[in-house]
Amino acid sequence: MAQHDTPDSATGEAILERTLGPLADCWGRENGYLSIDGQPLSARLPQTPAYLYSRRCLDMAVATLRAALPESIGIHYAIKANPFPPVVRHLAGLVDGFDCASLDEMRLADEAAAPEQKRSIAGPAKSRAEHRYAIEAGITINAESVSELERIMVVARTSGRRARVALRVNPPFALKGSGMHMGGGARPFGIDCEVIPSLLDQRETLAEGGIDLVGLHLFAGSQSLDAEAIAAALDGWTELLREWQQTTGFTPAELIIGPGLGVAYHPGDQPLDLAALAPAFARLDEQLAALGQHGGIRIETRLEMGRFLVAGAGIYLTRVVDRKISRGTTYLLCDGGMHHHLALSGNLGAVLRRNWPVVAVDRLDDEADDTVDIAGPLCTPLDVLGKHQPLPSLAPGDWLGVLQSGAYGASASPTGFLSREPAIEYLI
Amino acid sequence: MAQHDTPDSATGEAILERTLGPLADCWGRENGYLSIDGQPLSARLPQTPAYLYSRRCLDMAVATLRAALPESIGIHYAIKANPFPPVVRHLAGLVDGFDCASLDEMRLADEAAAPEQKRSIAGPAKSRAEHRYAIEAGITINAESVSELERIMVVARTSGRRARVALRVNPPFALKGSGMHMGGGARPFGIDCEVIPSLLDQRETLAEGGIDLVGLHLFAGSQSLDAEAIAAALDGWTELLREWQQTTGFTPAELIIGPGLGVAYHPGDQPLDLAALAPAFARLDEQLAALGQHGGIRIETRLEMGRFLVAGAGIYLTRVVDRKISRGTTYLLCDGGMHHHLALSGNLGAVLRRNWPVVAVDRLDDEADDTVDIAGPLCTPLDVLGKHQPLPSLAPGDWLGVLQSGAYGASASPTGFLSREPAIEYLI
Repeated sequence: MAQHDTPDSATGEAILERTLGPLADCWGRENGYLSIDGQPLSARLPQTPAYLYSRRCLDMAVATLRAALPESIGIHYAIKANPFPPVVRHLAGLVDGFDCASLDEMRLADEAAAPEQKRSIAGPAKSRAEHRYAIEAGITINAESVSELERIMVVARTSGRRARVALRVNPPFALKGSGMHMGGGARPFGIDCEVIPSLLDQRETLAEGGIDLVGLHLFAGSQSLDAEAIAAALDGWTELLREWQQTTGFTPAELIIGPGLGVAYHPGDQPLDLAALAPAFARLDEQLAALGQHGGIRIETRLEMGRFLVAGAGIYLTRVVDRKISRGTTYLLCDGGMHHHLALSGNLGAVLRRNWPVVAVDRLDDEADDTVDIAGPLCTPLDVLGKHQPLPSLAPGDWLGVLQSGAYGASASPTGFLSREPAIEYLI
Repeated sequence: MAQHDTPDSATGEAILERTLGPLADCWGRENGYLSIDGQPLSARLPQTPAYLYSRRCLDMAVATLRAALPESIGIHYAIKANPFPPVVRHLAGLVDGFDCASLDEMRLADEAAAPEQKRSIAGPAKSRAEHRYAIEAGITINAESVSELERIMVVARTSGRRARVALRVNPPFALKGSGMHMGGGARPFGIDCEVIPSLLDQRETLAEGGIDLVGLHLFAGSQSLDAEAIAAALDGWTELLREWQQTTGFTPAELIIGPGLGVAYHPGDQPLDLAALAPAFARLDEQLAALGQHGGIRIETRLEMGRFLVAGAGIYLTRVVDRKISRGTTYLLCDGGMHHHLALSGNLGAVLRRNWPVVAVDRLDDEADDTVDIAGPLCTPLDVLGKHQPLPSLAPGDWLGVLQSGAYGASASPTGFLSREPAIEYLI
């Protein structure tokens, strides 16, 4: 298959090896079937369209990350990446806390988490109901603006409780190589870092207003596959913390850092090299220990992780309903589409659509001797699942699986579009 | 306000006049409030976020279109544009039939439509359940491939009923100036026009298989603001029909034509000039009458209309929760966002996001002396509602309304994203 062995056209085997990185040991092949942890999916293929999430892959993703982290740096799961309750509950047994982005995510975290597991909520335009819930449940509120601090004080006063607040920082830098820039310029998220010192200086006034300034929330971007850029951002944060400690005397008791670890989705993407990041995490740990010692407290540091923990654990399954040829192009028309998997169609943040790792779930040993466009059932040209994608020659009834679909899939898609059935979700 | 009176920065008044075209008489201003049919919205502002659809605007959109159409050309409503049941039920009293794109849309049409109103279903990868429902309810199936004809025959046989089928044609041309090309090259939709004659020749064989070939479904693109291009496409269709009548003797009893009438969304868009299209519709009518006469039948012609009927009738309402300045940019952070209005965020088919007509609903007479970025409550940089948008200086609690939001809004958006509440929909 040498003639197909380019980034844009690869066999099922090559796709597995190329994209899954640390999870390549989890997904595999048995008798031509895609397998999870050595068990072929043949016996488990559900009704389609469906999302299948693997407990074993979730375990492995967390374990792989832990192996690259010093023991004192904890892991939070950002529920927004995949709020399917069984996934959240399974992760509750693996991580140290949860980061939430809405009232319902806080409720879900409260149901799933043990009492000692920390929780936080972030997001611009938080509602009064979100502030009240967070204050009453002792959830750390990541404040995104000075005016949010004022709103939090009002709610704290009326509820007669103190608010645990972290200032979310809009950094002076952006995470390079990041799919989504969330820092470095003007942003709806966080408080510009140049304003932070004056707020830290006012921490006693804030305390009088019912706000316990417990820490900082640091986030510069997401979906980066560049270990060097991620390391540079971590170094950038510690530099800022040192500067603020010197100028304001503030040492955060809690730090939530979103390092932006990315996932390989597209042909040519190289999985992030976690081993190359381990020294940067070790350096972060040392520097924070020194800062903590200087400030006389232990800084509790948590990484906010969403996509990286769940993307590889999920596969989106669809069946071919029709195979047709139009003016030289072969189409596989499937029962699943953009209403279940918006990102796959290129309509979730992508300027130009790129292909995803799509495999013939039950024909993994077959040669990719066909090149097809894959479309969903929606009566819109936006419903694209693949373009010029090499696959074995498939017929109606055959299965397709889209790897790396565990994050921002079912919950980030327009389920009601064209009034079709939602995808069924399974944790196996 | 001359200095702001450019396509990218306009007063509320200018935005109303510029974008609404035929509906400019429907939406208006009363005492600084946005009004519908002379009634200010002040008394009707609902809980936010919300979609408000106006019966009066729906009436006017249909009436405006009817005025440009010969009496013998009917109008179908394509439910996918807005499946909110009260909207569908209201339109049932105005249009001649419905076009559906799923099982649930067929059920909705059946509930809303009078028995004599025609219905059709289109879409690649139709399920067996969809075929069965359509056959049993006498709904015309727009067949998208030769293999779909075979699948329809199987279902017709097992259900003991005849199937009403129209061939959906993938034309040799694309609708120029169309936002979404759905014809002209290789497509998942329709049967390549060069294959159509051989299928028309086989209509007796199809009839023996349980398929009554009742007509054709003609669709070359959507969201075009170019009357000349739309007229050219209509002429292109009649030319094809004449050719096929000559070569195969086939005269369709039913024609469903999607003319692709577009809607002005963005600064610089000029509303489609319906009056300029009237001669093309008259020509279409004459030519089809001649073809019908030649074939000895009356061709029943229906325009498939979605977006054009409902877009202008809808407004998306959101309230400002926070106003913050980050590095020189003023942000209005709102309670509504991309989870309700994906197209507004630029993530539904747009390569580059463009601004929409956003107005300060209760401050329509105020000068647009502020320039703001507008963002929603989601913790993602994709949640953009406006960029560098001129507006009066607004504060938390103020209302924003996004005009032209009646099509592909609530139902085409990722409602579950970040586990937030859906928008409430109202028909007033």
